Amino acid sequence: MVMKVHGSVLSTAAMRVLIALNEKGLEFEFVPVDMRAGEHKKEHFLALNPFGQVPAFEDGDLKLFESRAITQYIAHVYEDKGTPLVCEGKPMATVVVWMEVEAHQFDPVGSKLQWELLLKPMFGMATDAAVVEENEAKLAKVLDIYEARLSQSKYLGCDCFTLADLHHLPILTNLMGTHVKKLFDARPKVSAWVADIMARPALAKVLAMRNQQ
Amino acid sequence: MVMKVHGSVLSTAAMRVLIALNEKGLEFEFVPVDMRAGEHKKEHFLALNPFGQVPAFEDGDLKLFESRAITQYIAHVYEDKGTPLVCEGKPMATVVVWMEVEAHQFDPVGSKLQWELLLKPMFGMATDAAVVEENEAKLAKVLDIYEARLSQSKYLGCDCFTLADLHHLPILTNLMGTHVKKLFDARPKVSAWVADIMARPALAKVLAMRNQQ
Ligand SMILES: N[C@@H](CCC(=O)N[C@@H](CS)C(=O)NCC(=O)O)C(=O)O
Ligand SMILES: N[C@@H](CCC(=O)N[C@@H](CS)C(=O)NCC(=O)O)C(=O)O
Repeated sequence: MVMKVHGSVLSTAAMRVLIALNEKGLEFEFVPVDMRAGEHKKEHFLALNPFGQVPAFEDGDLKLFESRAITQYIAHVYEDKGTPLVCEGKPMATVVVWMEVEAHQFDPVGSKLQWELLLKPMFGMATDAAVVEENEAKLAKVLDIYEARLSQSKYLGCDCFTLADLHHLPILTNLMGTHVKKLFDARPKVSAWVADIMARPALAKVLAMRNQQ
Repeated sequence: MVMKVHGSVLSTAAMRVLIALNEKGLEFEFVPVDMRAGEHKKEHFLALNPFGQVPAFEDGDLKLFESRAITQYIAHVYEDKGTPLVCEGKPMATVVVWMEVEAHQFDPVGSKLQWELLLKPMFGMATDAAVVEENEAKLAKVLDIYEARLSQSKYLGCDCFTLADLHHLPILTNLMGTHVKKLFDARPKVSAWVADIMARPALAKVLAMRNQQ
């Protein structure tokens, strides 16, 4: 039975899982969830994810949710397929550190900027300049640390592309369409890393799915 | 060489690591960081954690930060010592889901409530009633989902105590000293789970360290 991803290609969390599946070259079925119609809050979807958020995932009888739990499952269970995405032993501990950095330092700031600069305008809502300013300053500090890290190591977790990098891609792609792109461009190691990871064919495949919508 | 935890016993993130080490019965050295003096923003500490936050961790030459990356390292590398804390294979995927739930659904809400109800009053700052109300409503929804989950499974991740439960302990302990305790008490499975995990000797040891301060 083929794996199923329930979600929307506009969801950054769902994109994270779709990119991981494409990195692994795995076959899967994408089941669109009509979020505008509130399908993610209906009983049949809540049975897949009680928090009523996309994505939700099925591999045979196993049902998972939370995008980063799903990517870890894919990376570990399909370890021998496609791009490795994880590495074992002591270096893995450092990859996990940078996965946690994405989740606790990058994502909260990146999500707020994406909401203010991209989604609110899309929904006809007014951007809150104070929130933008505060989070731009926070993002600049995070990127200073990334710049130092990427001077020691080709990618965030180690010298190869792993989940620690991959998890950034959806929000990164969205932010590159806003004025905060300049914060990435101003830092040479960071901007080389952005160019490198944004050139991954697995991302291009997911963006192509998005453009077909 | 004995493992080192750099932090403050008042830090919920540092507590997470100290509880994990005690569950494993591992020997370690606790190196207090004087946060009031801003020691966590000085060069020698930034070499351990460039984000300038506690905890930071050393095991021989390996330096780690981000509390949940450190607990995962301890659980995997010292798998055969003390409490298992993880399980392998398909059930592990579900433990990871609930670890992600703690990080993305419980922690953001619990941290805000702890800040408003415990830390702001401690620092002589005024609690923001609107933030409390909003986050109490969010916490209630999260706990409804925990109540359903704990009807299927003794602990969040599986039928044994794992990192998915452990990661909740520091903020949970703090919230139990505030009026939001009633949200936990009102849900039978949740309140039995809280009583069970708060009775762990590993937590008592960390609270004893805190009380000696
Ligand atoms: N931490 C979750 C976040 C999932 C999430 O927030 N999904 C959004 C779309 S990107 C959603 O479903 N929002 C609808 C809602 O929260 O009601 C994950 O990584 O899977
Ligand atoms: N996501 C980090 C959070 C660490 C954190 O926020 N630590 C707090 C104490 S609980 C701290 O050092 N705050 C000082 C600061 O952020 O400047 C972790 O889990 O280790």
